[in-house]
Amino acid sequence: MMRSGVRVDGIAWRSIWTEDDTVRVIDQRRLPGELAVLRLASAEDVASAIRDMAVRGAPLIGVTAAFGLALALRRDPSHEGLAAAAQLLAATRPTAVNLAWALADVTAAVADAPASARAEVAFARARALADEDAEICRRIGERGLPVLAAAARGRTVRVLTHCNAGWLAAVDWGTALAPVYLAHERGLGVEVWVSETRPRNQGALTAWELGKAGIAHTVVADSAAGHILQRGLADVVLVGADRVTAGGDVANKIGTYLKALAARAHDVPFYVAAPASTIDLRVRDVAAIPIEERDAHEVTELGGVPLYPPGTPARNWAFDVTPAALVTALVTERGVCAASPDGIAGLFPERR
Amino acid sequence: MMRSGVRVDGIAWRSIWTEDDTVRVIDQRRLPGELAVLRLASAEDVASAIRDMAVRGAPLIGVTAAFGLALALRRDPSHEGLAAAAQLLAATRPTAVNLAWALADVTAAVADAPASARAEVAFARARALADEDAEICRRIGERGLPVLAAAARGRTVRVLTHCNAGWLAAVDWGTALAPVYLAHERGLGVEVWVSETRPRNQGALTAWELGKAGIAHTVVADSAAGHILQRGLADVVLVGADRVTAGGDVANKIGTYLKALAARAHDVPFYVAAPASTIDLRVRDVAAIPIEERDAHEVTELGGVPLYPPGTPARNWAFDVTPAALVTALVTERGVCAASPDGIAGLFPERR
Repeated sequence: MMRSGVRVDGIAWRSIWTEDDTVRVIDQRRLPGELAVLRLASAEDVASAIRDMAVRGAPLIGVTAAFGLALALRRDPSHEGLAAAAQLLAATRPTAVNLAWALADVTAAVADAPASARAEVAFARARALADEDAEICRRIGERGLPVLAAAARGRTVRVLTHCNAGWLAAVDWGTALAPVYLAHERGLGVEVWVSETRPRNQGALTAWELGKAGIAHTVVADSAAGHILQRGLADVVLVGADRVTAGGDVANKIGTYLKALAARAHDVPFYVAAPASTIDLRVRDVAAIPIEERDAHEVTELGGVPLYPPGTPARNWAFDVTPAALVTALVTERGVCAASPDGIAGLFPERR
Repeated sequence: MMRSGVRVDGIAWRSIWTEDDTVRVIDQRRLPGELAVLRLASAEDVASAIRDMAVRGAPLIGVTAAFGLALALRRDPSHEGLAAAAQLLAATRPTAVNLAWALADVTAAVADAPASARAEVAFARARALADEDAEICRRIGERGLPVLAAAARGRTVRVLTHCNAGWLAAVDWGTALAPVYLAHERGLGVEVWVSETRPRNQGALTAWELGKAGIAHTVVADSAAGHILQRGLADVVLVGADRVTAGGDVANKIGTYLKALAARAHDVPFYVAAPASTIDLRVRDVAAIPIEERDAHEVTELGGVPLYPPGTPARNWAFDVTPAALVTALVTERGVCAASPDGIAGLFPERR
């Protein structure tokens, strides 16, 4: 459990690790009130943790699912058992591509291993994915730092973000917040507008992370983004992504698209930070990205308390799509590129 | 207490009335859970009710403040007493122009009355303002009905609204919801997307109103508007206003601007329904409209429960400004007009 990013109360946390042959994650549903650890001992535990959003964030969902396969193989190392666990885990949340990607990675890694070794091979691969993710996010920070420095124009840079794309959403560092952490570490003044991100208020996770890191931040309602950008109170918008198409369209937390529209209206650059693994080269048409719809009670209740008359219908899409034309650039561990077919193809020379 | 709009459980409510020589309002902070009536016996009671948002909505704020002056004059009919009460009431909420307008109207009405008659003259004028507001809103409904019929194109019209601009926000009928009520009454199929309107969740008031009227509606997070408009799930956006400039820029509940940007991006018409009294002909530069900023705890707490780590800073602007260029048209009791200097001047031939 080493981490090179921010520390929380003196401890270098990651969002996921192994301990006593099981998997441990921070239960993000209990933050910011309580830093509680959840023990995951089976693929079913992992599926519940992802579905119920004890863990969330595209990179972390992928790594957690990888550990889920390893846990499943320990109980049943057969290929049938593996396939059943992969199916269970793949069905938890449909939008983030990292989930399917990580399941395919671990499945390939164990394909040639003897049954008796499969679980350990899978654990090793899941741990490697976690370490790789931390390193990828650190590099996203390095690649994104000049973006923030340019937006700063010599002053404190004011970043508007949405949802949580910090270390809690990944294994370490985060995606959109990685450049912010690095900027702070290197003495570039940075302040963050934190959008509360209804209905699940992941802005509270971002506020908690930034507070622990000593980075100035201010929480606002999701609806405030237009006013902030219109009044020139933000220099750059920086968000994460759950899936990016080969053409550069971005599926991310519901509300991202409205921020992109407002950024364009006021000539504020709009960057999307994501690992290359979040780019789904198979998807050209954005309509092919499934948009998860979650239970209506997430909108109509808060902490079990009804906000609306009983029976009020609600819709609860978890993501929306920001067209590539509104994205200034993608910030990946491989570099900063245009959100366009050519820009993205340039990130993947091995695919040429 | 007659009303010609919707009924609630068989009773024809208004949002404000007089009873036993005092003023009664529905305490909107207790909806949708409870339909509670608040008794206002002094200008101080009225100021608190407006400031704490027991009553809200530009038209209702104006009428309530008018009754506040009448209550003040009953205790102290002097011109000094009147001026002090007007100052107290004017300071409660800065953005809605109806407040200043109603105070000026009542002040003018009592100017020539003898001290002994001032309170009764003021009460009569306040009651007249309430009746006028109800009639104005009904006319906004008549003027807006063809707008909805056009957007319907023969099918059920799907309206996206924000905040509460229904009868609770006025005296009766409402502004943005007046055409919706009338459409429903006259058999034009109508469904409403209700934006929850953080941080105070006035969407719950809209859902409550529509539910009582039997009008189909669906609640969504504020962030969902981009997705709804992008996917073609709304035919028209229809909102109220707190102040409109002589040029047609619209100050309305925070988040309105983002909806206007998304409507434009997808060629969905964006209408603003407001009485002519909400148009502030003295204001040409939108920067001259004061944007109320409310207490941060409205964002950081819900029902007294903290959503963020203790001490998390927040900003809480109550309104934003939608530029005239994004407004398809204004729907007023005088007619539907372009949100432009010429369009608006045409509504006020008496000022020419």
